[in-house]
Amino acid sequence: MNVIGVLTSGGDAPGMNAAIRAVVRTAKYYDMKVMGVRKGYEGLVHGDIFEMTARDVSDIMHQGGTILQTARSLEFKQIEGVRRAISTARYFGIEGIVVIGGDGSLKGARDLCTEGMPTVGIPGTIDNDIPYTEYTIGFDTAVNTAKEAVDKIRDTATSHERCNIIKVMGRSSGNIALNVGIATGAEAILIPEREIDFTRDILGPINAGKKRNKKHYIIILAEGVQDSDGLEKQIESETGIETRTTILGYVQRGGSPTVVDRVYASQMGSYAVELLKDGTGNRIIGVDKNRVFDIDIYEGLDMPRIIREDLIELSKILSI
Amino acid sequence: MNVIGVLTSGGDAPGMNAAIRAVVRTAKYYDMKVMGVRKGYEGLVHGDIFEMTARDVSDIMHQGGTILQTARSLEFKQIEGVRRAISTARYFGIEGIVVIGGDGSLKGARDLCTEGMPTVGIPGTIDNDIPYTEYTIGFDTAVNTAKEAVDKIRDTATSHERCNIIKVMGRSSGNIALNVGIATGAEAILIPEREIDFTRDILGPINAGKKRNKKHYIIILAEGVQDSDGLEKQIESETGIETRTTILGYVQRGGSPTVVDRVYASQMGSYAVELLKDGTGNRIIGVDKNRVFDIDIYEGLDMPRIIREDLIELSKILSI
Amino acid sequence: MNVIGVLTSGGDAPGMNAAIRAVVRTAKYYDMKVMGVRKGYEGLVHGDIFEMTARDVSDIMHQGGTILQTARSLEFKQIEGVRRAISTARYFGIEGIVVIGGDGSLKGARDLCTEGMPTVGIPGTIDNDIPYTEYTIGFDTAVNTAKEAVDKIRDTATSHERCNIIKVMGRSSGNIALNVGIATGAEAILIPEREIDFTRDILGPINAGKKRNKKHYIIILAEGVQDSDGLEKQIESETGIETRTTILGYVQRGGSPTVVDRVYASQMGSYAVELLKDGTGNRIIGVDKNRVFDIDIYEGLDMPRIIREDLIELSKILSI
Amino acid sequence: MNVIGVLTSGGDAPGMNAAIRAVVRTAKYYDMKVMGVRKGYEGLVHGDIFEMTARDVSDIMHQGGTILQTARSLEFKQIEGVRRAISTARYFGIEGIVVIGGDGSLKGARDLCTEGMPTVGIPGTIDNDIPYTEYTIGFDTAVNTAKEAVDKIRDTATSHERCNIIKVMGRSSGNIALNVGIATGAEAILIPEREIDFTRDILGPINAGKKRNKKHYIIILAEGVQDSDGLEKQIESETGIETRTTILGYVQRGGSPTVVDRVYASQMGSYAVELLKDGTGNRIIGVDKNRVFDIDIYEGLDMPRIIREDLIELSKILSI
Repeated sequence: MNVIGVLTSGGDAPGMNAAIRAVVRTAKYYDMKVMGVRKGYEGLVHGDIFEMTARDVSDIMHQGGTILQTARSLEFKQIEGVRRAISTARYFGIEGIVVIGGDGSLKGARDLCTEGMPTVGIPGTIDNDIPYTEYTIGFDTAVNTAKEAVDKIRDTATSHERCNIIKVMGRSSGNIALNVGIATGAEAILIPEREIDFTRDILGPINAGKKRNKKHYIIILAEGVQDSDGLEKQIESETGIETRTTILGYVQRGGSPTVVDRVYASQMGSYAVELLKDGTGNRIIGVDKNRVFDIDIYEGLDMPRIIREDLIELSKILSI
Repeated sequence: MNVIGVLTSGGDAPGMNAAIRAVVRTAKYYDMKVMGVRKGYEGLVHGDIFEMTARDVSDIMHQGGTILQTARSLEFKQIEGVRRAISTARYFGIEGIVVIGGDGSLKGARDLCTEGMPTVGIPGTIDNDIPYTEYTIGFDTAVNTAKEAVDKIRDTATSHERCNIIKVMGRSSGNIALNVGIATGAEAILIPEREIDFTRDILGPINAGKKRNKKHYIIILAEGVQDSDGLEKQIESETGIETRTTILGYVQRGGSPTVVDRVYASQMGSYAVELLKDGTGNRIIGVDKNRVFDIDIYEGLDMPRIIREDLIELSKILSI
Repeated sequence: MNVIGVLTSGGDAPGMNAAIRAVVRTAKYYDMKVMGVRKGYEGLVHGDIFEMTARDVSDIMHQGGTILQTARSLEFKQIEGVRRAISTARYFGIEGIVVIGGDGSLKGARDLCTEGMPTVGIPGTIDNDIPYTEYTIGFDTAVNTAKEAVDKIRDTATSHERCNIIKVMGRSSGNIALNVGIATGAEAILIPEREIDFTRDILGPINAGKKRNKKHYIIILAEGVQDSDGLEKQIESETGIETRTTILGYVQRGGSPTVVDRVYASQMGSYAVELLKDGTGNRIIGVDKNRVFDIDIYEGLDMPRIIREDLIELSKILSI
Repeated sequence: MNVIGVLTSGGDAPGMNAAIRAVVRTAKYYDMKVMGVRKGYEGLVHGDIFEMTARDVSDIMHQGGTILQTARSLEFKQIEGVRRAISTARYFGIEGIVVIGGDGSLKGARDLCTEGMPTVGIPGTIDNDIPYTEYTIGFDTAVNTAKEAVDKIRDTATSHERCNIIKVMGRSSGNIALNVGIATGAEAILIPEREIDFTRDILGPINAGKKRNKKHYIIILAEGVQDSDGLEKQIESETGIETRTTILGYVQRGGSPTVVDRVYASQMGSYAVELLKDGTGNRIIGVDKNRVFDIDIYEGLDMPRIIREDLIELSKILSI
């Protein structure tokens, strides 16, 4: 292949720029041309496409977000939209595409493959909820951002002997909550993967903490679990401890990427070009045993969900 | 004086620990004894008081919050409570008190003075809303924490071409919002001190930004101004730009203090002991022209409120 | 005036971009044109000049360094160079100039004034060593960067019971060292403004710390004072405590500016345009009592140096 | 087992406290007793040992360094020292030991095993240079600290169009340099594992950058490779670009640990107790495929060194 396209899709994630940069630099290394597609599949359908130069990716690695932007595309959800996207891509000379995005976006990449456009998917989502890979771009930055916020909240929780509920991202996956909760020594971590028993999971650790003369209580709540208002009131009424909620929100999506996010994203971007260069499409890239690897896109996206029982168990032991 | 007490009161603020440390270290330098009072006036009323050693203040300067904790005291709001606090203090041998806190806490310090306990007040509040002084402990850390959050949100706002409303602390004062808004190049800054004209103050800058091909819009909202839900909907309906809100909340109260907060807090804590050492009470300490000074507590707390017209004007010019 | 130039000169400082942005935005507000001069006086002499648009200053406020770059100019040190710079400026239509830089750069601004070009100086240097103003752009970011480094070094110093010497910037001024030293609770702060007595200033606090069972010793050394190698050996040989040196170096110049640096720089940039707009040159801008003000450039640059005896005294009391 | 000891040894690493906390908490969960050993093997030989309570590990997870401190022990290097350490341990009732440290420290753990004390090793070193495991405690924090420093230096490098050499830790391993270099888009990464060809590896990328109109050049140098002074001069003389060196030094060892360091350290500390609880010693713990595992200590420490050819290759492609 001589001309490849690259796009980012779905929610943005810190590190996507490192992947884009690696795609452009590696392509240049092999004398290939890269067409940047703006605003995800929407831009692919409608031809919001431009040739990228080395200059376009200068000094972008440390920036959060994605310079290619991202957007939702209703049109691309239909088979006609996928076909239109491919014909637009071909019009721009694109022979293969790198798609960087989360679960839904990678399914879009699979649709491109099915309709005949060689495509390589790179997992980019702060949720780290794609079973075939140990790692997705943005997760490491997001959990570190959340950790820093919780560390700050702990200061003030201690001063006031309060309980603080911190709601983190994760509609269907508790990965962010689990990692942030363990990393901040939370009393309780509430995730969608595990049913909550208020007495066992919340009252238990708080009461154990009281006995140890603890001065603060931190509850990490994945947003998919429940409303925080009700929880706040329940904790106050059953423990008598003043309870406050913080919803971390969009802060978690931004920020300068960590080393892990920059390095893996760079490796995956480069790897994707190596595959397309040799004419290999229909693959998705992941991390296994600290190394980047590729797998068939149909097979990869079909893998069953992994629940981190080890971390759930650990969080129980450590919060006692 | 040979024995002084120190307490923190009201909302905690980063840098309070640096002030406590300076009180203890300076007292030790002059061979005075320091009694630490836990949980503000509540601890003073009820005798939650202990002798502080140099060790108690080792390695606390970089910590947010206050090691002496803070709490509300209904009892101290009554004259009987103030008198009881003074008699408790005297029981512990305390001859003078250093109070670190915001507006309400300094008024409590004034009550102590009125009832005969020599007291020195140190302004500690993230709101920086005490007219007699240029600076209050915690403000600098709070605005920097908020700034970092907004910088992160900007990344993702750009990726999605969104408008982001960020609600910062400040019920009756727009100081945090004004500084954060100018520091992050916000399109609009909504503060309680200035009436908002939606068309002029919000639509105007957004439309000007659109013309310049801006990819993100940041609105900083002081919490005392209005509900963010309504604003979110109004912006979406009148501009068509997807709008999201983040409530920064308690994150702003915590965090390791900045240099400004550590150095001024150290100076003020030390200065308070110098005053009490010489038997001088009934003063509050502030910053004027980069230097620490003291003023009569009755006079200082009576000064009229200052509205930063210069910053309000600047924010209008820069958001055009 | 309708056309003004802006340049940054000398060592770069975080916040210079905020000042440049404010110059451009404020000029635009008043329908004036701004010519950006690259690489300081060198660019002014040689005409490395371009018209700046609002777009040029988009998303630069959070970036360290200066987008206009900076360089030394031997030519400008001669009167012929100054005259050539003015005639180049006039060739580009420039009627007044904003110079952002340290002591030497402001003296260059004065030379421009003397030779007939209305110029307004803005103090930009991490050293904060310009007597007429309480504040110079970049100082606040630099001391916070240094503080964060020292906080990290303290962790490892404690683990190993070591003494750590940290060399900070400041060839002839101890301002950075004093503020960083107080903010990090250093045992000793060595600055050019004060003669060092090894026994009193270094051995004394270390021995006092030993008695208190301290586990780490931090010495902040301004680079202008002495070589760190000799000091390291002397401390080791006289105390038996393993001693290590870290030279912070260029890290202190970079980094995303703090709120103080962004806000004051914005105010000063805007203020400079207000002056030039009304035809007022020959001024330098500063901060006094938290407010931006201007003063005659000849008078301002002639003010005697201020030594912060208050901070020197405080550092002695707190390190006991 | 009912009583276990825990010690940290060698250079300290951020995250060691999280491991210590997990050891204490997990032991408490199983009603076991933990004896903390201060200052590594030196404390084990000489009995600097105390019983740890849940309180001892409260609020330590976010702290860099190690609360148990660390030190070198000449005595423990001799077989007599090892035996004396074991008899001291037994005197304190210790039936098994958790050792947290780098390569040399884990070899000490092996010696304890050989002499009959069941011991479990946990890899803790910022170098990440222990072949049997993908991860060692502290590496992730260290590379992120270095990355942040390089991001700051880049700001000022750009302003001055300079080349900056940044010397990072790594006497015999280029892991830190490789990751930091890729994460910061360095022009060249000089590591001990790969011979340097000045023309190919340094001049080549700098000249390529010049052509692309680059404004800064970053060279990451692992400390084991060469002296930076000579390199600085060589680059200046052969490219004419002003070149400066920053030695990051001890800053890299400190700092609040990242989420990865906190979570893996917590998992490994907990896992070590699970092993000892069941009487299993002579193991070292590592990370494989994102999961914690254990391996025979003799076998694990005998594995051949891994050179990250994939990252070396990537760095070459991306710096073109």
